[in-house]
Amino acid sequence: MIRLTAYRWVPPFAQGLVRDLRVRWALEEAGLEYEERLIDVREKPAEHWAEQPFGQVPVYEESGLVLFESGAIVLHIAEKTEALMPRAPATRARTITWLLAALSTIEPPIMTWIQLDDDNPAKPKIVDFIKLRLGQLAASLGDRDYLEGDRFSAADLMMTSVLRIPRTSGLVEQFPTLDAYKKRHEARPAFQKALADQLAPFAKYAPPAK
Amino acid sequence: MIRLTAYRWVPPFAQGLVRDLRVRWALEEAGLEYEERLIDVREKPAEHWAEQPFGQVPVYEESGLVLFESGAIVLHIAEKTEALMPRAPATRARTITWLLAALSTIEPPIMTWIQLDDDNPAKPKIVDFIKLRLGQLAASLGDRDYLEGDRFSAADLMMTSVLRIPRTSGLVEQFPTLDAYKKRHEARPAFQKALADQLAPFAKYAPPAK
Repeated sequence: MIRLTAYRWVPPFAQGLVRDLRVRWALEEAGLEYEERLIDVREKPAEHWAEQPFGQVPVYEESGLVLFESGAIVLHIAEKTEALMPRAPATRARTITWLLAALSTIEPPIMTWIQLDDDNPAKPKIVDFIKLRLGQLAASLGDRDYLEGDRFSAADLMMTSVLRIPRTSGLVEQFPTLDAYKKRHEARPAFQKALADQLAPFAKYAPPAK
Repeated sequence: MIRLTAYRWVPPFAQGLVRDLRVRWALEEAGLEYEERLIDVREKPAEHWAEQPFGQVPVYEESGLVLFESGAIVLHIAEKTEALMPRAPATRARTITWLLAALSTIEPPIMTWIQLDDDNPAKPKIVDFIKLRLGQLAASLGDRDYLEGDRFSAADLMMTSVLRIPRTSGLVEQFPTLDAYKKRHEARPAFQKALADQLAPFAKYAPPAK
């Protein structure tokens, strides 16, 4: 049995972006059932800290094995199924390359952009850098449907997840092929189910309006 | 045969930190020979762009397989040898978790710190955030020698590599167990060989002093 730790509620700016979504999506693509453990983002229980040194979500538990880091968990799930990871060693290694490119090359400048106030003097430079990276990604993708091989993989799952982060910036929309790539994968039933499952408790446990 | 693409020369602030060092280190730990292809960081050749969509180093080539992203390459090498990756599935998955923690939780705020000018108004907040993360990492490591299991692994290779980045900040030194952890792994012969091999061309190809 698989158990996933996620937040009971987060503020609207984070809803639909919390990183358990990547794991929920992978589990849906793999056809694996799981149960949730929902915790309070403002008062994380001691047993969560015991499992996750940085207090983040998601945590993934499976028959006594405890994993954290959405990238590591998605890789772990992907290895269970050809729905997310090709079996051929070369294509598999290239798929992992693209998954890491999402996490280590595309996501960090986007997270820097998120963290800086709008009037921060470094923000224009970060925007330019993100546009450089997105342009390179768009050029590499070309008119292909997938980053690697001829079917959806964990690489597309992770790249789509990362491209969803700057949703208030209009940045991805400046690259029509990337925007179409993202929207095409967001339309997958597994993503839609995962997103609905992340959002459901947020509605249920929303704090009373002030 | 393995071929690694690296830079012929980089400015002093980047020497000893360019990410091919992680791959060189992994290859030394694994006992795998490789040849170098050195390129000019200011004039990257077209064949490099054809292999690496973002123009970065390292690129790793092995019998026609082309990989990029130092995280993905280190994972690929680690899978070849117990010197870097335990065979037991649970320990293996935990090792990958810690490797991803280095890349996705510890490295990004450090890179944000690097990118911001010293007088950037967000810099104190980033420093506090890095200290929070390093404190959590130190608490999790405790007095153990390794992040996972009872021997060195790709997780320690990557975490040490990331902890080396803010070398002018004094940040890691504020956490004596982390500082000792980093120094212990930097003392490994495989790291020393890899570092010397990265630095050798920088001395040879240094531009004339102005």
